[in-house]
Amino acid sequence: MAKEIASREENYSQWYNDIVKKAGLADNSAVRGCMVIKPYGYAIWEKMRDQLDKMFKETGHVNAYFPLFVPKSLFEAEEKNAEGFAKECAIVTHYRLKADPNNKGKLIVDPEAKLEEELIVRPTSEAIIWNTYRDWIQSYRDLPILINQWANVVRWEMRTRPFLRTAEFLWQEGHTAHSTKAEAIQETKLIHDVYATFAETFMAMPVIKGFKSENERFAGADDTFTIEALMQDGKALQAGTSHFLGQNFAKAFNVTFSNDKNENEFVWATSWGVSTRLIGGLIMTHSDDEGLVLPPKLAPIQVVIIPIPKPDAELLEKAEEIADALKGLGISVKIDTDETKRPGFKFADYELKGVPVRLGLGKRDIENNTIEVARRDTKEKMSIGLDVVVPYVEQLLEDIQNNLYNRALAFRNNHITEVNDFSEFKNVLESKGGFISAHWDGTSETEEKIKEETKATIRCIPIDAIAEAGVCIYSGKPSSRRVIFAKAY
Amino acid sequence: MAKEIASREENYSQWYNDIVKKAGLADNSAVRGCMVIKPYGYAIWEKMRDQLDKMFKETGHVNAYFPLFVPKSLFEAEEKNAEGFAKECAIVTHYRLKADPNNKGKLIVDPEAKLEEELIVRPTSEAIIWNTYRDWIQSYRDLPILINQWANVVRWEMRTRPFLRTAEFLWQEGHTAHSTKAEAIQETKLIHDVYATFAETFMAMPVIKGFKSENERFAGADDTFTIEALMQDGKALQAGTSHFLGQNFAKAFNVTFSNDKNENEFVWATSWGVSTRLIGGLIMTHSDDEGLVLPPKLAPIQVVIIPIPKPDAELLEKAEEIADALKGLGISVKIDTDETKRPGFKFADYELKGVPVRLGLGKRDIENNTIEVARRDTKEKMSIGLDVVVPYVEQLLEDIQNNLYNRALAFRNNHITEVNDFSEFKNVLESKGGFISAHWDGTSETEEKIKEETKATIRCIPIDAIAEAGVCIYSGKPSSRRVIFAKAY
Repeated sequence: MAKEIASREENYSQWYNDIVKKAGLADNSAVRGCMVIKPYGYAIWEKMRDQLDKMFKETGHVNAYFPLFVPKSLFEAEEKNAEGFAKECAIVTHYRLKADPNNKGKLIVDPEAKLEEELIVRPTSEAIIWNTYRDWIQSYRDLPILINQWANVVRWEMRTRPFLRTAEFLWQEGHTAHSTKAEAIQETKLIHDVYATFAETFMAMPVIKGFKSENERFAGADDTFTIEALMQDGKALQAGTSHFLGQNFAKAFNVTFSNDKNENEFVWATSWGVSTRLIGGLIMTHSDDEGLVLPPKLAPIQVVIIPIPKPDAELLEKAEEIADALKGLGISVKIDTDETKRPGFKFADYELKGVPVRLGLGKRDIENNTIEVARRDTKEKMSIGLDVVVPYVEQLLEDIQNNLYNRALAFRNNHITEVNDFSEFKNVLESKGGFISAHWDGTSETEEKIKEETKATIRCIPIDAIAEAGVCIYSGKPSSRRVIFAKAY
Repeated sequence: MAKEIASREENYSQWYNDIVKKAGLADNSAVRGCMVIKPYGYAIWEKMRDQLDKMFKETGHVNAYFPLFVPKSLFEAEEKNAEGFAKECAIVTHYRLKADPNNKGKLIVDPEAKLEEELIVRPTSEAIIWNTYRDWIQSYRDLPILINQWANVVRWEMRTRPFLRTAEFLWQEGHTAHSTKAEAIQETKLIHDVYATFAETFMAMPVIKGFKSENERFAGADDTFTIEALMQDGKALQAGTSHFLGQNFAKAFNVTFSNDKNENEFVWATSWGVSTRLIGGLIMTHSDDEGLVLPPKLAPIQVVIIPIPKPDAELLEKAEEIADALKGLGISVKIDTDETKRPGFKFADYELKGVPVRLGLGKRDIENNTIEVARRDTKEKMSIGLDVVVPYVEQLLEDIQNNLYNRALAFRNNHITEVNDFSEFKNVLESKGGFISAHWDGTSETEEKIKEETKATIRCIPIDAIAEAGVCIYSGKPSSRRVIFAKAY
């Protein structure tokens, strides 16, 4: 089974597609660029969603739900935002089908059911939400509004890849409203921190925290904070963004409040989101040629118990006993009771699915009072005493979580290269890949030329960048700090 | 504040709209027929969703996610289903906007970005799902498939009401695939039971379990099981449906499996759903002229503590102590720390929002070692010893849940009227309303005529209907059991 996966060495892109398909994460659909998220992939998303939702609520946010559709007149109100999304949006123009008079049993769009105003399927919801906030906000007492929404959005991308870039995707989008600039910036940073904590603590995926150059900012934002992760093939993945929107949407939708001096002011805004794209990041941070590798904190099944050679009453009884004890500790356990497949096949299948810990339980094990414990991350196997297996596995899950993070961190740190001239820049980009730390003159013009020549973009200006005098690798003009370049997904 | 609500007596429909608006459940939006679900309304939906999700998982189901769009050629494949939804669907025809050459800053649909095949925004997902299942099912070993999806759907309804009937709504839709007819019917009934249990145990909303007449069946189903609730104004609400789809979708999408004798057969199907409409049912089952009344099991805030006359250190300390003890029992508690509003205003506001239990804590209470406990359902107030308030409240929440159910059950049972001729039928319908139990000849023709003349429809043929010889109230033809009629939302 595992053999059906391309190796990473041979073809990273094919390897990725194979993992998505063979591990049962997602499938293509009949709709161009839209995927079906299969139960196993969706279970990972549920784990991510529940954890993020908890973190949002702990920081004072509540959920709500706004319409899928945005009337064109609202969509175009904030011009930069509209321009940014106009080229890739699905548009509803009609509201009825009718029988095709020339083709029995078939339907055609009823030309008489044309909408007076076209509806855009939301690519993001600032427009519809700020049009609503106008009615909700009168006074400073109505602020802040700290709302998040879990939803589907549609961006009609031309080149799609499962999870990484799909025409429809699932995400959360926070939309907050504040009475002061300082408070809105604080919110933008708070969420930036939440995203980084989530990525590192739960996904075991190290990220660089920074902000975007003007070119790479969200359309309609004054500032975009980002977390940038590094994939195994040396390409970067933008994993989450938190935007300070200034008063742009308040002005476009005329959302004002009277402050405590009874003066009218425009409201300050943020928006922020992460999406099912994170599942792509999870795959490309940890997995190997045998299949998916999942950090225990996001694994739908953390431990699988396989009776060897096949389930019988004695083995199942012992397996149940272990499973119950593990479940008592909040660990999710599956006992494989399938009698039709051999252990070797099952081992390969759970490796493919990235289950962090596998317990193999045979007759002789019970006689010897032992059990075989295999960890997915290193593929090490150990024989462990049955009486200590429960605390051992509990600790092992923590170790795996930490090991995955440390392994990814070492890889990422080995792939941040400081370069000081453009030929070195191109060399590193082609030979080693990864993040390149280099001086840049701060102009969009230089950024664009570097992108044209190398396909590398500025991933971010790190938040903790140290002031350092230097010269731009491309223009030779002065620069005061290094920024992070990479080719990106 | 409460005064802003119309009384039920005066105008039930206005009262409903007032509750939705003033209790902060939902708001209108800029999109025709689409609502914004506000944080408090969404919090109720989250409670419903989490409980249902748990019940689905406990009965062996898993979640997945399928595309929002259905290509027209798939949409029309199952003809009855297509016919049922063709007249009310939103249709995506283009995938790009461009700058309007005649109107600076405005956008128009780019005529060059017309889709080759139109996409229907899903009104329900049988078509896209069964087109996918074809690739997932080869052998009986691939069955059953027990998948549920939480999603938004769009039905372009002409007359909309918040929660009850909106152009876009949130729901869950289960789509299962089976190797035998018996197993599919068993699944249909299992979910029917889950829905009834959820409605009665969690929503405290009694339901009649039955199946639909042919006229009222889901388009594409062989049989539709329903739970029917009775609202305070005597109208029925279809609260959840579970469909046995036979092999209709398998045939339309050519989904076959090889059975254990290696013969090819069409797969058997079910689908089932409940939606945000349930929130409408919740409102119209329990609420009163002071506002929303929520059953404790679905209340986002179960207990509110109000320091009187305003929060100070001593009152807050005591309130925290009580809140912590209640939270330790899994009860959700809010302490109202707002210093700007008076207790009377707060009392009315939490009544409006339907918080089941209100605790009023004053200085003299602390001296006397007492606290005032007010229950929302009966509006009774009691002074309770501070040392027993925690177990008292825990028990009270259970009592309120039971009282709401019993009150609704008594009302419902008082509004099931047996009638034996058509003039009595019309009389009861106009004077008393509610469910009418009557003989019907079993024909669609009679059903339609009764509907034309009275607007009443057959809500269901109760599952536990007793065989009873009689004559149809309309045609006088023989009938073997009574069915349930009502006017319905």
